[in-house]
Amino acid sequence: MRIHGRPWRTIAVVDATGDVAVIDQTRLPFEFELVTLKTVDDAAAAIRDMVVRGAPLIGVTAAYGVALALRAAPDDASLHAAIGMLGATRPTAVNLRWALQRMDAVLRPLPPGRRVERAYAEAAAMADADVEACRRIGRHGLDLLRAIAVRKDGGEPVHVLTHCNAGWLACVDWSTALAPVYAAHDAGVAVHVYVDETRPRGQGALLTAFELGAHGVPHTVVADNAGGHLMQHGRVDVCLVGSDRTTATGDVANKIGTYLKALAAHDNDVPFYVALPSSTIDWTLGDGVGSIPIEERSTREVTHVRGRADDGRLVEVQVVAPGSTVGNPGFDVTPARLVTGLVTERGVARASREGLLQLYPERTRA
Amino acid sequence: MRIHGRPWRTIAVVDATGDVAVIDQTRLPFEFELVTLKTVDDAAAAIRDMVVRGAPLIGVTAAYGVALALRAAPDDASLHAAIGMLGATRPTAVNLRWALQRMDAVLRPLPPGRRVERAYAEAAAMADADVEACRRIGRHGLDLLRAIAVRKDGGEPVHVLTHCNAGWLACVDWSTALAPVYAAHDAGVAVHVYVDETRPRGQGALLTAFELGAHGVPHTVVADNAGGHLMQHGRVDVCLVGSDRTTATGDVANKIGTYLKALAAHDNDVPFYVALPSSTIDWTLGDGVGSIPIEERSTREVTHVRGRADDGRLVEVQVVAPGSTVGNPGFDVTPARLVTGLVTERGVARASREGLLQLYPERTRA
Repeated sequence: MRIHGRPWRTIAVVDATGDVAVIDQTRLPFEFELVTLKTVDDAAAAIRDMVVRGAPLIGVTAAYGVALALRAAPDDASLHAAIGMLGATRPTAVNLRWALQRMDAVLRPLPPGRRVERAYAEAAAMADADVEACRRIGRHGLDLLRAIAVRKDGGEPVHVLTHCNAGWLACVDWSTALAPVYAAHDAGVAVHVYVDETRPRGQGALLTAFELGAHGVPHTVVADNAGGHLMQHGRVDVCLVGSDRTTATGDVANKIGTYLKALAAHDNDVPFYVALPSSTIDWTLGDGVGSIPIEERSTREVTHVRGRADDGRLVEVQVVAPGSTVGNPGFDVTPARLVTGLVTERGVARASREGLLQLYPERTRA
Repeated sequence: MRIHGRPWRTIAVVDATGDVAVIDQTRLPFEFELVTLKTVDDAAAAIRDMVVRGAPLIGVTAAYGVALALRAAPDDASLHAAIGMLGATRPTAVNLRWALQRMDAVLRPLPPGRRVERAYAEAAAMADADVEACRRIGRHGLDLLRAIAVRKDGGEPVHVLTHCNAGWLACVDWSTALAPVYAAHDAGVAVHVYVDETRPRGQGALLTAFELGAHGVPHTVVADNAGGHLMQHGRVDVCLVGSDRTTATGDVANKIGTYLKALAAHDNDVPFYVALPSSTIDWTLGDGVGSIPIEERSTREVTHVRGRADDGRLVEVQVVAPGSTVGNPGFDVTPARLVTGLVTERGVARASREGLLQLYPERTRA
């Protein structure tokens, strides 16, 4: 996607020596800076310190981290140490584990002298595969937005509401939930996005607003509390969110608060779509509310807010009465009955076992 | 209610000369300080600068402001000037206008020499009437909480979820939505309150959490996004919120985000009660979503958050990407179909025209 006219990916090899550059997401949206990763330690620190975040991007960064380790020393001990170090950075990230296992399986059988080139190629292939899946999600989602656009009065944009950041900053390019928005915008379909702030971490107000603004997509940031009111008054045409984990029956675990927007969409006949690469589908799970464990995150995310002070410094301030107990569930589950459709890289599925199996027939058990 | 063991009201005459003290709510929860109002200018500034806030408290403060003006000069010009100045402090506060009209009607016919004593008596009567209405709401709500408590396993508290601050800090004492909680706590019924942060202004995390903590009521502050998840998992027994305006058919305008919690309560069979003095009922209105105008508030409430920095100073920080458009509707409307009951000073009404008229038969038109 573009940042002020120039195309970017969140991660890229930047020179012939194989250094890797990433956008420093801890400083967005107030500062735009690149961080150059020269060693596996740099890559591990970038993941651990959330310089990069978002499951797909974490996986690709780890893959490049392995390449950086092998560039320094291509032997078995180096490979083993790199995978161990990178795997310990974010304990719950599924893509991270999957990416490292794939790198290990591909590289370990090779003689050390052939590992570096192959590691870079494999990491690049992983990045490109993510971009391609996101691009396809965008194309399928574009059809949905076009269908809404033709029913609107001339000139009035399609109003999308999104929650959190399922944007390209979480991926390599294009994104999941916002890919249809970018595809529509680039194709000349007028779109406008209501961006939920997404407390407690504020990914909507900080990251989604930044990336939409930088790409030139009209948008309005609102408090998480506002979406129901907007839908009651016909100001939202469609909701588009991402998914951290999807059950085989179409239940969707996503950032805390997603369920509330799905309820409001249902109550006001607003279509509610979830965009996801099929890698987030957990084919072993049925009832999402009962079976998906919800991470209880640090209370400090609720008690403190980080932002830019008048003097330009990034400052954390306390926003909860001292001494109060705090709860911070990180995700919630939206039941399939509230989901209009699942936008995947293969097309739009109904949010049900039957709907998903139509697109993924290879998952049908005998 | 109590602050660390000592009983308080939000406003009180503090000495024989008639000085009035209020709790400085701009510094809560981080600092607890009183402000002494000695002149009508002091009272007007306290309302305008939100040292006092909440419709009932604003009305009572304005009434005492008139008394302070007359203490300085009891003539007609002084009375007229005081009412004009106080009425201009908060343009949309209905209670403010009502309180000043009542003071004017009572005081203007009196000879100047009898006005001061009567002004203090009238302001005190207004304060006492608010306390009494809130106390009755608490008593009726207590019956609801007791009925839930007897169905719970021994020792497990009744879990209440509330939104914003409809607490005693917005009133003189007892409060509306929290009056049943205080009544239950004081009567030995175990209660625990989930407190919505209530972005954008954070009244839940700041004021509700402060007043519950100071009175000793167990509570947990959560992001506004969390309530749906809590209800899905059976962790909320009842929702209790306030109302800024209630239609004759039982629709409820309250702080933005209330509607989302009502949807979640309905989806999970959690009773959803609204506590309100009958003064908030607008008997002329039917459909709330269509007829209640919703104030669009300052975008700065969304773009900036005020809190306590590490060095103890209160600091505002920017929390939205620079350049993004921002929307800030202040209230939303919860349709009566999502409201289990309206807890008023006369008892609990069904949220319908018939339900309200049973409690307020004098409102039945011929």
